[in-house]
Amino acid sequence: MTKKIRVGMIGGGPGAFIGAIHRRAMWLDNRFEIVAGAFSRDAEKSRQMAAELGVDADRAHTSADKLMEAEKLLPVEDRIQCISVVTPNAYHYEACALAVENGFHIVCDKPPTRTLEETIALKELLAGSPSLYALTFTYLGYPMVHEARSRVLNGDIGKIRKVFVQYPQGWLSTPLEKEEVKQASWRTDPALSGPAGCLGDIGTHAFSLAEFISGKKVNSVCADIRSFVDGRLVDDDVSVLMGMSDDVSGVLLASQIMAGEENALTIKVYGETGGFQWSHSDPNTLIHMDLNGPTQILRAGQDNGYLSAQTQQLLRTPSGHPEGFIEAFSNIYGQMADAIVGNGELGEGVGIEAGERVMRFVDAVLTNAISSEKWTEM
Amino acid sequence: MTKKIRVGMIGGGPGAFIGAIHRRAMWLDNRFEIVAGAFSRDAEKSRQMAAELGVDADRAHTSADKLMEAEKLLPVEDRIQCISVVTPNAYHYEACALAVENGFHIVCDKPPTRTLEETIALKELLAGSPSLYALTFTYLGYPMVHEARSRVLNGDIGKIRKVFVQYPQGWLSTPLEKEEVKQASWRTDPALSGPAGCLGDIGTHAFSLAEFISGKKVNSVCADIRSFVDGRLVDDDVSVLMGMSDDVSGVLLASQIMAGEENALTIKVYGETGGFQWSHSDPNTLIHMDLNGPTQILRAGQDNGYLSAQTQQLLRTPSGHPEGFIEAFSNIYGQMADAIVGNGELGEGVGIEAGERVMRFVDAVLTNAISSEKWTEM
Amino acid sequence: MTKKIRVGMIGGGPGAFIGAIHRRAMWLDNRFEIVAGAFSRDAEKSRQMAAELGVDADRAHTSADKLMEAEKLLPVEDRIQCISVVTPNAYHYEACALAVENGFHIVCDKPPTRTLEETIALKELLAGSPSLYALTFTYLGYPMVHEARSRVLNGDIGKIRKVFVQYPQGWLSTPLEKEEVKQASWRTDPALSGPAGCLGDIGTHAFSLAEFISGKKVNSVCADIRSFVDGRLVDDDVSVLMGMSDDVSGVLLASQIMAGEENALTIKVYGETGGFQWSHSDPNTLIHMDLNGPTQILRAGQDNGYLSAQTQQLLRTPSGHPEGFIEAFSNIYGQMADAIVGNGELGEGVGIEAGERVMRFVDAVLTNAISSEKWTEM
Amino acid sequence: MTKKIRVGMIGGGPGAFIGAIHRRAMWLDNRFEIVAGAFSRDAEKSRQMAAELGVDADRAHTSADKLMEAEKLLPVEDRIQCISVVTPNAYHYEACALAVENGFHIVCDKPPTRTLEETIALKELLAGSPSLYALTFTYLGYPMVHEARSRVLNGDIGKIRKVFVQYPQGWLSTPLEKEEVKQASWRTDPALSGPAGCLGDIGTHAFSLAEFISGKKVNSVCADIRSFVDGRLVDDDVSVLMGMSDDVSGVLLASQIMAGEENALTIKVYGETGGFQWSHSDPNTLIHMDLNGPTQILRAGQDNGYLSAQTQQLLRTPSGHPEGFIEAFSNIYGQMADAIVGNGELGEGVGIEAGERVMRFVDAVLTNAISSEKWTEM
Repeated sequence: MTKKIRVGMIGGGPGAFIGAIHRRAMWLDNRFEIVAGAFSRDAEKSRQMAAELGVDADRAHTSADKLMEAEKLLPVEDRIQCISVVTPNAYHYEACALAVENGFHIVCDKPPTRTLEETIALKELLAGSPSLYALTFTYLGYPMVHEARSRVLNGDIGKIRKVFVQYPQGWLSTPLEKEEVKQASWRTDPALSGPAGCLGDIGTHAFSLAEFISGKKVNSVCADIRSFVDGRLVDDDVSVLMGMSDDVSGVLLASQIMAGEENALTIKVYGETGGFQWSHSDPNTLIHMDLNGPTQILRAGQDNGYLSAQTQQLLRTPSGHPEGFIEAFSNIYGQMADAIVGNGELGEGVGIEAGERVMRFVDAVLTNAISSEKWTEM
Repeated sequence: MTKKIRVGMIGGGPGAFIGAIHRRAMWLDNRFEIVAGAFSRDAEKSRQMAAELGVDADRAHTSADKLMEAEKLLPVEDRIQCISVVTPNAYHYEACALAVENGFHIVCDKPPTRTLEETIALKELLAGSPSLYALTFTYLGYPMVHEARSRVLNGDIGKIRKVFVQYPQGWLSTPLEKEEVKQASWRTDPALSGPAGCLGDIGTHAFSLAEFISGKKVNSVCADIRSFVDGRLVDDDVSVLMGMSDDVSGVLLASQIMAGEENALTIKVYGETGGFQWSHSDPNTLIHMDLNGPTQILRAGQDNGYLSAQTQQLLRTPSGHPEGFIEAFSNIYGQMADAIVGNGELGEGVGIEAGERVMRFVDAVLTNAISSEKWTEM
Repeated sequence: MTKKIRVGMIGGGPGAFIGAIHRRAMWLDNRFEIVAGAFSRDAEKSRQMAAELGVDADRAHTSADKLMEAEKLLPVEDRIQCISVVTPNAYHYEACALAVENGFHIVCDKPPTRTLEETIALKELLAGSPSLYALTFTYLGYPMVHEARSRVLNGDIGKIRKVFVQYPQGWLSTPLEKEEVKQASWRTDPALSGPAGCLGDIGTHAFSLAEFISGKKVNSVCADIRSFVDGRLVDDDVSVLMGMSDDVSGVLLASQIMAGEENALTIKVYGETGGFQWSHSDPNTLIHMDLNGPTQILRAGQDNGYLSAQTQQLLRTPSGHPEGFIEAFSNIYGQMADAIVGNGELGEGVGIEAGERVMRFVDAVLTNAISSEKWTEM
Repeated sequence: MTKKIRVGMIGGGPGAFIGAIHRRAMWLDNRFEIVAGAFSRDAEKSRQMAAELGVDADRAHTSADKLMEAEKLLPVEDRIQCISVVTPNAYHYEACALAVENGFHIVCDKPPTRTLEETIALKELLAGSPSLYALTFTYLGYPMVHEARSRVLNGDIGKIRKVFVQYPQGWLSTPLEKEEVKQASWRTDPALSGPAGCLGDIGTHAFSLAEFISGKKVNSVCADIRSFVDGRLVDDDVSVLMGMSDDVSGVLLASQIMAGEENALTIKVYGETGGFQWSHSDPNTLIHMDLNGPTQILRAGQDNGYLSAQTQQLLRTPSGHPEGFIEAFSNIYGQMADAIVGNGELGEGVGIEAGERVMRFVDAVLTNAISSEKWTEM
């Protein structure tokens, strides 16, 4: 084994959801070790998490700034190589900008930053910098999503006509943010998450998946966004018609008030001769509908010879052994590990360009939502 | 048994799809007998179908006009009581108007007429007339659709927030209308089907289902409609954002170019505390999602005590014995039979008012589609 | 239309489950008319049902005997041509034997008779008689069951190795027979249903399906049968290992105490290169598993060109329009109608030979159940 | 964090399937580190794997014997604490016996040993020893399996009546063992895997799951076992009737020649008032069938308050985020970690007693298979 990649985590203090996922995603394949962190702005909490993770107490900090300052003083062979950013959106830009400045690689939870402007600024910083950058658009880590993209681009269903993606959740059906539920509070606070709520939190996942699998770009949007829960400061339900490149018609739904729904992000892409369907509710399956023949059920499995080589590489088990959310996350970290050691490149869809596109989408939808014009270009 | 209701069929000649369905729908419960028909404009074909059905040759005609003229001469106890209209849309108005004029009841395939204007005219004719009128919005004949409506109106999922309905088909992915496929030809010919294609053919089903189950009315639409197949004269793909009463947000998709799809009309209705999902791909099941507890799978079955009395009456078998499309169709005919013999009323959703609403919807969507204004009132 | 076939129904009085199914199965395709009946041993009830069905009061009788005596006096062109036997099992033999004697055709609910001896006697009566005979092994009327058989016999999955069939029901989990539930009472009364309970009622369906689809014969059985409900006089749970022809291994489960199950008869047949699965819970689908490639979802539909011609003929609708239990039943009546008018033959699997096989199976299982020998030949 | 537990792996050289799973199961929660290994009997391969894993070359050995000898010389704080045994079955006993002798804890892949005799001997060695012992009966690591057991034992479906478990695989439908496929070769070689093939490999999983969820014990078996593939030295298809405690009736199927099947281990347990179904094809779902009400779909999720506290502790993500095979495996390692640090006990079902039961089951089935007696006690 080449040595494990040394990571400093920004965010991910006690009780955080996504920080714990990032950590397991790093551990699963044993290619990363967390050696430092600014786990919390509260020094006590940051040290507590460090202790829990086996990180030296003197490498537990209270800000990205202090972490990087301290790490720069360490010998290069001990120093972190990469940061993992798992804070609320509002703190992404600062951490990433500092990482570029200090020559660290970056894995950052989506969306890239709180605003489009920050994302553009970050993109400029990254241009020409040696820092590698990956956004954890989790669903792009699922092997069968790659299989779908590969088959669509290969022409298996002919010229693409229609893309329909929905991301239904129900957990924000009530004003959870008033009950001090941490996940709900920051996600519905524009100062921390940005001007978009559901749109930014999960609409962005749906958008990135739609462009990734279809290979088409959204050019214009027409949206109906709502905030159903009294007193909520951001949207919680989003419906978007999308004009896509090559005359493809797109529809995107994202909602956090579809009461009783869990997390069943589902995409359907149709071409002239068939369609593909992938759903997070059964992520190891890809359904291939055919205009003239029976529907085929493609299944994940290292041993399924009909899958592409890339899909097989993203799998850890033979067919019939379910892989899930953490494995998908880990596949994005795996791309970063490969890129750092020079064994591969970061895939399309997880770079800053993809990040910029989701931020432009958010912006266009928010603009359209208050416009009487039907379509807004993005 | 009260005697069987005597029916004259308009349309439904050799090779017709929907005519054969209407006939079986009438036969299934043995409450109707077809005793006359204008099965085809071709005399030979009309007689051929009459012979096949055991209808007297002299009661086989070539137009609704001639049929009714002849029937009026018969003793009232032999004369048809009701017509069943299964022609292309363009001929609906004439047949129905004549029926009203001659005092016959009407079961008519949807949509009510070729244009909104004709529907309004028909509505006026029906007002004050003793003729009973039912549209075969087939999906409103499914027992679990009634169960969904009943539970929604009962408040089981709280105040409604979101309605999402999709009707995916793929059979018109190629220019079938150029290959002399009868079903495809008239459905894509504006002179026969009306200005709308997919929108009128199946978008209307989706619309009627959405209003029926949710109990909410569509007030405004914002649409993206397409015609993907070269040379096609009508739309074949429809995406609509809908403003509904009581601030409900609606989305409707209907397509005939989702290659590989069959006929899986699916609706989801969400309220503050849960949601219902019904799909034509599993029509004997109603899924009840709950904000706080496990999802429940409600199942059709005369013996399922948790279903409403009305739902149970629409069923012919105990749980686990699948009922399907013809049974649903037959339930609408059953309502007509009950109404004719005075044992019940025609249900909401299948009358001319519902017919007018779908025609207004079609009109509003077509208007919006070529407008730069975002929303069109309906 | 050739004239409708005239039927006399034996059994099927007020409140009967299976009688109502048989009637709708006859009506659905408009090829039969019920013109006489011995609907009940109670004269009042028999006349009541006759009135409900539009049958002349003087053709309503109280026994098969009286019905046939009376019908024989009618002109041949008015006289019934066929009887439909829907009584409890104990009365099957008498009705069928009389029909043979009087030259009527027979459609009989399964199993053929109460005992194997009666079935053998009936088989002898039928031999050389002009009476046509069909058992309503309902599941053999499902189009996708025929497709499965056709593909298995065609070698699509290679040499058959394993057959697994299960018929889970839960409705007899409690002593319903003590609560005067008609369906439960006679089915658990050996005098009316025969020595077998669940085994005879639904185990026979499972057995007939297994032999029909696999094309293999059961040679020996090894069984564990139980009666879980206190005071029940017959078995309510059956598990059978089966030695089948050509070294095929079979397993059959049937139960009426699998609490919460409906009626999801499911069969899996595996060969050297793949397997087929069909389930009554989704009867319009046939799943084709492949050793080396993706699973294929075959779907019912007149327009699905990949189905066999025979399967297409058994369908009434295009793909995506669900057909169900009554349609399957009607397909068996359709075979009888074809055979009567000389347009076809009764299919394998619904004749008296198939009936004899299920009775031998019941006998062998009951014998084995009380034996310390592992295997009992059948 | 308490320091990570130091593990020596026995087996798991280059290309091994289950070794790689064990490693990821250890890494996922960051509680174990592999510091030594006898990865292969080939010194070169063992060193190669050590290098790949970041294990010091001088801690890479060629046998369990040499590994333990060397480890015993290290300071207790560096020395391994636990071994992970992932060799073919034939080598389990030696490794485990040595571990007990040397005071190491043991995680061992199932089955415990090649023969029942060895398992009994190991059980005696373990009795009174401080060594902790866990078998990776993987499916007992799935959270919803625990939920099922907890609800069954809690009486949610009343007195248990029927257990049905099936483990269908198809990958050994052809003589893979002759094609030098490593997984196939040792699993079909009695010298390496034991006298049972499919029975020992996956029948044991099905058996352990059946006893775990139902809380009932198998007392007697009646089996039909086959070897369908020419030249195969062990069984590849197993059907077993089981007499279980408290008059429960059990049926177990396991097969490796159900062509086209993957790994969909499925269990159904029925009681007087309902049933539970769990399937590896959808492992985050537990289906609760109810005799009188709708079926409920219970779903995995840390945030699903209706799950038991224990189930929630076995989960790493909120509802809708699929967890899979590696997570289940890791849950068993997690039990070992808790037990080693004194924070918990090893759960029922993964100890040597459970191991002994599966070996007795294998023995009884093999005995019965060649007997003309119907039932064999176990």
